[in-house]
Amino acid sequence: MNQRIVVIGGLAAGPSAASKAKRINPDADVTLLEQSEHVSYGICEIPYYIGNVVQDPDNLIVFTPNDLGKEKGICVRTLSVVEEIDPVNKSLAVRDLRKGKIDEVPYDKLIIATGSRPKTLGFPGEDARNVFQIKSLDGAFALKKYIGEEKPAKAVIVGGGYIGMEMAEALVANGIETTILHRSDLPMSGLEAGTKQMVLEELGRQGVRFHPKTQVKRFITDSAGKVYKLETSSGDFSADLVIVAIGVEPNTELALKPRISLGPHGGITTDQRQSTSVDSILAAGDCCEVRNFVNNAWMYAPLATIATRQAWVAGENAAGGTAVFKGALRAIAVKVFDLEVARVGLSSREAQESGFDVVIDSIDAHSRIWFFPNSAKLHVTIVLDKRSRRILGANLIGKDGAVLRANTLSVAIQQRLTIEEISHLDLIYTPPFSPLWDPLLIAANRLKKRK
Amino acid sequence: MNQRIVVIGGLAAGPSAASKAKRINPDADVTLLEQSEHVSYGICEIPYYIGNVVQDPDNLIVFTPNDLGKEKGICVRTLSVVEEIDPVNKSLAVRDLRKGKIDEVPYDKLIIATGSRPKTLGFPGEDARNVFQIKSLDGAFALKKYIGEEKPAKAVIVGGGYIGMEMAEALVANGIETTILHRSDLPMSGLEAGTKQMVLEELGRQGVRFHPKTQVKRFITDSAGKVYKLETSSGDFSADLVIVAIGVEPNTELALKPRISLGPHGGITTDQRQSTSVDSILAAGDCCEVRNFVNNAWMYAPLATIATRQAWVAGENAAGGTAVFKGALRAIAVKVFDLEVARVGLSSREAQESGFDVVIDSIDAHSRIWFFPNSAKLHVTIVLDKRSRRILGANLIGKDGAVLRANTLSVAIQQRLTIEEISHLDLIYTPPFSPLWDPLLIAANRLKKRK
Repeated sequence: MNQRIVVIGGLAAGPSAASKAKRINPDADVTLLEQSEHVSYGICEIPYYIGNVVQDPDNLIVFTPNDLGKEKGICVRTLSVVEEIDPVNKSLAVRDLRKGKIDEVPYDKLIIATGSRPKTLGFPGEDARNVFQIKSLDGAFALKKYIGEEKPAKAVIVGGGYIGMEMAEALVANGIETTILHRSDLPMSGLEAGTKQMVLEELGRQGVRFHPKTQVKRFITDSAGKVYKLETSSGDFSADLVIVAIGVEPNTELALKPRISLGPHGGITTDQRQSTSVDSILAAGDCCEVRNFVNNAWMYAPLATIATRQAWVAGENAAGGTAVFKGALRAIAVKVFDLEVARVGLSSREAQESGFDVVIDSIDAHSRIWFFPNSAKLHVTIVLDKRSRRILGANLIGKDGAVLRANTLSVAIQQRLTIEEISHLDLIYTPPFSPLWDPLLIAANRLKKRK
Repeated sequence: MNQRIVVIGGLAAGPSAASKAKRINPDADVTLLEQSEHVSYGICEIPYYIGNVVQDPDNLIVFTPNDLGKEKGICVRTLSVVEEIDPVNKSLAVRDLRKGKIDEVPYDKLIIATGSRPKTLGFPGEDARNVFQIKSLDGAFALKKYIGEEKPAKAVIVGGGYIGMEMAEALVANGIETTILHRSDLPMSGLEAGTKQMVLEELGRQGVRFHPKTQVKRFITDSAGKVYKLETSSGDFSADLVIVAIGVEPNTELALKPRISLGPHGGITTDQRQSTSVDSILAAGDCCEVRNFVNNAWMYAPLATIATRQAWVAGENAAGGTAVFKGALRAIAVKVFDLEVARVGLSSREAQESGFDVVIDSIDAHSRIWFFPNSAKLHVTIVLDKRSRRILGANLIGKDGAVLRANTLSVAIQQRLTIEEISHLDLIYTPPFSPLWDPLLIAANRLKKRK
């Protein structure tokens, strides 16, 4: 009998793992189970679809069920909800939402790729028809339709993180007056204070109102079932549209019954082969935690880059391979209107909590020679461990060249370079693109002096 | 008596070395000798001044003699030509071009920073008033004036290297019909064939005529002393303006008498402290060769980035320090009209000549997700050593994100990463700036399969 590999979850890690498994062992029967109608779409692109940067919704679809089936030879079952994993008999109880009945699906190897789900506020009114989360393609279509048909004038975004920033830009692009309500004093936790301050200033320049230290207490709905007011710790806010974007958490209900080990952040923990604590069950993607190789601690970093690489490893190993995923650092960026905002490695707070002897410092430099076209100010903050002289993390923010420079620092952090080594890196100088002293070198030369 | 540090050469390495020496030992008497009237200007920016990208010539000046004197405490002597170095008595014979007489200038430590000079064709007519090289600020002013006043219609650039590319863009920006005559079949030696081909196509799109395998034989001048025709191996070319840009060579005449060791490319060789083979004489910048730390061979790489770093080391050590310059790789880029063209590390030819077991391969990818604004095709070529799996070099060419991605590979090459390690690097994905699989990862994943 052919090897039976079953993958639960059809968004990002799932299809990647299933495809990889089939490539490694073309004789395997690979089944992908997905609870919605869609598989393999670009959830990260949804704010840009709402903001009309991406016009064609087809561009959001990476693979259709048919692509995965016909082209890759994977059996795709959409509208199929796994209700339970039986690790002893190696089988799943799967509810077919079309037929309403439960099947038993046996497996030799199982890959859990159930992803994440947005956190909720837990209030009545959160399911009102003008309250949206950015979590699914259907939700994106509904939001787009709502904006097109009902032309909301005022929006409130609950949460000033990455999705909050992207959605603010998307809503402003639709001509909607936008207010962000945020728990903390500055947007985007995880960034250094100076970076956050610059994000806040950009929001102000773009006409977005930002209310710090604001807790939402209640949604007030009208007779048509729409929220029209939010009661908060900073007073009332009226709204025609509400976006809730307060972060995500791993989807790990299915891990409970088979007693799969979870980590400190509630995600599934695996070894370097993406095997869970339970025999023949692997996991990949946003339902997992990941080893941060800067401080060697578990972190929850629901990023498509990490998910895809874990998925390749899980898929290969489910099919008999011996691939390894060694961990990751946070290498993330977001566009905040006209700014590129990037972060790599540990924040100063994470670094302190991990016991490093932290010093941070910042520089402002020009992205290109200052009198050349497209040159813009770039603000670079580096988190340094004074004992080892290693750099542990960095923030870059500016209108030009922040993200790709962050990648250069990402490699430097992964290679455990000291600040002195970074100050000696050979980087390109060419007047229209990069100054004689690249901002990364200017930052390193400054930090080098901090003993 | 205070320590006497004398620096010969006032363009790039010289002022940096002098400034560093004075910072390290504020009591030293630091003297900078420069044969022209100007010090410390941006020779790399000259094509952009000719092309009117840089409007204000003051932007070309980094430091005036006065800046270096008053602000930094350096004694600057312009129009001062060193005629001879006496290493036994530690003194220089210096001709003062204002007074026409020769002084003796003693030193305790001498730093030679005499730079490079453009190669010449050696023909009569090369000194005609409409023949220019890109070698000095005065030359740039003369060329700008010539274009403004005499409005040349047709230009011929002899040489299809970096300066040839930049000058072609500058002349086209002035509305001048531009022809490049080049020795080899494709422009820009040192790049891989596929990259050169894309450069050639860009020249064609921009209306620049490129004549390959063309040797200039003779300049034909009119009665007013201007070249109006070039006889070449590919026939005659008429011209109102000629730019000669056939490369540079190290300026090392002064090294001969004191028998300072030179390397295989005719540049001064130094140890890691920038000391030459002669006691108390250091050297830095374009007059030097540099250790390429990819193949550990001497190379001649007249780049401002390398010059400045050597200068800091030479300046610090002349003043009593123990700084080290370990070498460099070639990390260079040029704008060819709408393209960013970057190269890091060894070319495939250099790699073969150094005994590596070379494989090269290329990919085309999008710089950002293909349906996002500003996304453009990026062509990445990687030079791999099959035995060690290290990457030795790379070319990147495209309209977006080539140069800064080359820096990321530069770090990878400096860290001797294997292609497998590069394929596992954590790089940023964020829709408006970078795709899920960065072009660098796509390239690494492809090369990984080449065993």
